[in-house]
Amino acid sequence: MTSEARRLEKVSPRESMRLLGTVSLGRVAFTTRALPAIRPVNHLVDGDYIIIRTDAEAAITTSLRSESGSVVVAYQADMIDYAEHLGWSVTVVGLAQQVVDPDDAATYRRALRPWVEGEKDQVIAIHAELITGFRLVPDLAKR
Amino acid sequence: MTSEARRLEKVSPRESMRLLGTVSLGRVAFTTRALPAIRPVNHLVDGDYIIIRTDAEAAITTSLRSESGSVVVAYQADMIDYAEHLGWSVTVVGLAQQVVDPDDAATYRRALRPWVEGEKDQVIAIHAELITGFRLVPDLAKR
Repeated sequence: MTSEARRLEKVSPRESMRLLGTVSLGRVAFTTRALPAIRPVNHLVDGDYIIIRTDAEAAITTSLRSESGSVVVAYQADMIDYAEHLGWSVTVVGLAQQVVDPDDAATYRRALRPWVEGEKDQVIAIHAELITGFRLVPDLAKR
Repeated sequence: MTSEARRLEKVSPRESMRLLGTVSLGRVAFTTRALPAIRPVNHLVDGDYIIIRTDAEAAITTSLRSESGSVVVAYQADMIDYAEHLGWSVTVVGLAQQVVDPDDAATYRRALRPWVEGEKDQVIAIHAELITGFRLVPDLAKR
């Protein structure tokens, strides 16, 4: 346990998307049956889109089906040191839709390695509409 | 990039809570203004409760105020190796309420080190009602 001071530094949307692209792991949050849900997934960033894979039975796919093809989700990734609590966190809110174009879906499938092999997996694109990011940096003035 | 196989192994609720207690960092997901939101926070586990701190201006505190003192949230923490994608993830869904007892709140405040110092911080207890956990382990049969 350290008691060293740190402060939040806002990160621009562009830099936030760049940071997202430097890691492969994040968490998608959505609402299913009126309850908040959150799942760890791996991702890649393609322009304004965050691409994730999920299997056909996953709660998010069920939500997509029941909400006429699109659902608003939050996506979050971070790289924070467990001991020092320094690092960054980025959260994106936007519409998630299944990637239906077979060529695009195939390209993403090749690039995105799923954690566990599954037969019927879906490719989902989250359009980054609301992007917030911050860095936790040492507060030198308070040290 | 490795292409080694891994599989999901379910973790019991009791073991899931124990795993949660071994890390100090997680993400709380909730709904604010009809949109999914997700925030990284630090936590401690006290029996069936996950205790987090947040400042009075945070979106989750606003939600708590507007929903007559309690709101359902999802809490997730993991410890997953970025290179190998092996590790564990635990998700808890339950009612979040502000800790109003001043002694309890003071005890939690001492034990929980916030990332950034803030004046008016709230202590929130999430009652773990729905606990799901899994481990990502190497699938030796497929290696």
